[in-house]
Amino acid sequence: MNKILVVGSVAYDSIETPKIKKEHLLGGSANYFSLSSSLLASVNVVGVIGDDYKESDLELLKNRGVDLAGLQKVPGKTFHWSGKYEESMNEAITLETHLNVFEKFNPVIPDSYKDSNIVFLANIDPELQLQVLEQVNSPKLVGADTMNYWIQSKKETLLKMISKINILTINETEARMLTDEWNINNAIEKLAEMGPQYIIIKRGEYGFMAYDKSSKEFFVMPAFPVRNLVDPTGAGDTFAGGLFSYLASLKDWSFDDIKRACIHGCIVSSFTVEGMGTEKVKSITLKDIQARTKEYLKIIQVGSSTSSIEDVTSKKLNMLN
Amino acid sequence: MNKILVVGSVAYDSIETPKIKKEHLLGGSANYFSLSSSLLASVNVVGVIGDDYKESDLELLKNRGVDLAGLQKVPGKTFHWSGKYEESMNEAITLETHLNVFEKFNPVIPDSYKDSNIVFLANIDPELQLQVLEQVNSPKLVGADTMNYWIQSKKETLLKMISKINILTINETEARMLTDEWNINNAIEKLAEMGPQYIIIKRGEYGFMAYDKSSKEFFVMPAFPVRNLVDPTGAGDTFAGGLFSYLASLKDWSFDDIKRACIHGCIVSSFTVEGMGTEKVKSITLKDIQARTKEYLKIIQVGSSTSSIEDVTSKKLNMLN
Repeated sequence: MNKILVVGSVAYDSIETPKIKKEHLLGGSANYFSLSSSLLASVNVVGVIGDDYKESDLELLKNRGVDLAGLQKVPGKTFHWSGKYEESMNEAITLETHLNVFEKFNPVIPDSYKDSNIVFLANIDPELQLQVLEQVNSPKLVGADTMNYWIQSKKETLLKMISKINILTINETEARMLTDEWNINNAIEKLAEMGPQYIIIKRGEYGFMAYDKSSKEFFVMPAFPVRNLVDPTGAGDTFAGGLFSYLASLKDWSFDDIKRACIHGCIVSSFTVEGMGTEKVKSITLKDIQARTKEYLKIIQVGSSTSSIEDVTSKKLNMLN
Repeated sequence: MNKILVVGSVAYDSIETPKIKKEHLLGGSANYFSLSSSLLASVNVVGVIGDDYKESDLELLKNRGVDLAGLQKVPGKTFHWSGKYEESMNEAITLETHLNVFEKFNPVIPDSYKDSNIVFLANIDPELQLQVLEQVNSPKLVGADTMNYWIQSKKETLLKMISKINILTINETEARMLTDEWNINNAIEKLAEMGPQYIIIKRGEYGFMAYDKSSKEFFVMPAFPVRNLVDPTGAGDTFAGGLFSYLASLKDWSFDDIKRACIHGCIVSSFTVEGMGTEKVKSITLKDIQARTKEYLKIIQVGSSTSSIEDVTSKKLNMLN
């Protein structure tokens, strides 16, 4: 079975939505990714925590079988992010960022992690992402995410990192920013030219687009329409966790597998947004995911025979001839 | 074969996008709808034009077999709308509206139209929409669209109109405004409670959602990702034209037919947005639509077997047991 190594932030977040305000919630990309991916796969975490990090938050991951050998504990406070959302909840507005122990984070990969054959570089400084890659023994599959901040401040390093990965997950705005292309298809193709075979565009409540550079094929799907959007924080990292853990369950990967892995990621993240912070993704089970996947496959089901869309136009064309 | 009666605006538009500015383009909901729907169905138009309306613009519809007996010509100028789009092109900003002959428009349905068994009430004053409905002999299917202006200024009349129709097509923002519900699933259910059996939510570049009140089923699909977005004006009316003309080709309608009809509408409108005004929808053929439909069905194709999404989770669950 494939093992996943994830490097990312481990944090406490204070989040304000139009309806709820909560302080000191468990957060950070590595936590969201691990909680999501550990439902299907074996996960090795690399990150840093301060001495205020709660034992129960470590237990949470341990109980999911997550290996924490790569989680450094150093004196000081854990990374803390505060953000709020307006009514549309499309974008987080950062109120405060206290890097704390994260400021001097220097990822060290334990020997026991070095043979992880899937690596996910969550959104952190691209220099650190590269450092992680240098320490692992030729993984079979490397994925990464990034954000506007690195696109603006460290583009060159970011491009170097992107040139070394197989799958890039990135949101629509960032994809446009990184490529200077407004049209999303063109942006995707430019991203693929930077290196990765697969480009996954995250579109929030509107789902995702996936692209395979080899076949030049696109795959576009809506998100599962959630009834109760509580807090979108972590949706992207949960999506990535679902995506890579699905792939970890397979021996090799076709674009069809990537498509299904994205749907799995979509479903897991549809749960995440139903609770504040990691509240909901902490408690879901594979059975919950299975049930919602069934529901999802129904809402994207065109009907008994998709070919009949073409029958109507063909019939008309024949009448005209 | 079912005949479609459409009532809506017939206009000249001046449109400015980040790249192009054009004056006096053929426009109006009835024109977009007719150009789109006449590719598959017989269409009867009800509207009003001024004495400046070009003969060639009438010929255009006549050549598509559209019946213009209900198009009143009165002294004065044709309705003129000016609008512009910012870079995202998500929403039109109205610069000027000259109602002109449209101000005193009083729709009169010619006798030859009265047995049209499909009626589409494009976005005009809901009082006029009701007047049209009163003049036709119990059509089998009635659809309507509306806009924020009527939601704010004539909500009561609008609700009366909506209570009499079978299919409501409306955009996401308007759906939220009309129902006071931010969550789109909840908004859809509230809209269905107002009367229509089917609710179609237009999401622009993100596609559409369809809902069937009887089965309580949802259907969600992305839009065809266009390479060359030139001008989104008329996309919604073209979508409706495609949708209702597809339905006009069938004897009766299941939710599966509505789903396919929406996809057909989506494809036709993906052409409309590739040209300024009606430029592109004027010139497309059913063959163009067929080719793009094939392409679209490929980009929404989950893969050889969708059930295997569940196989991965099932396998893991079995291992855990």
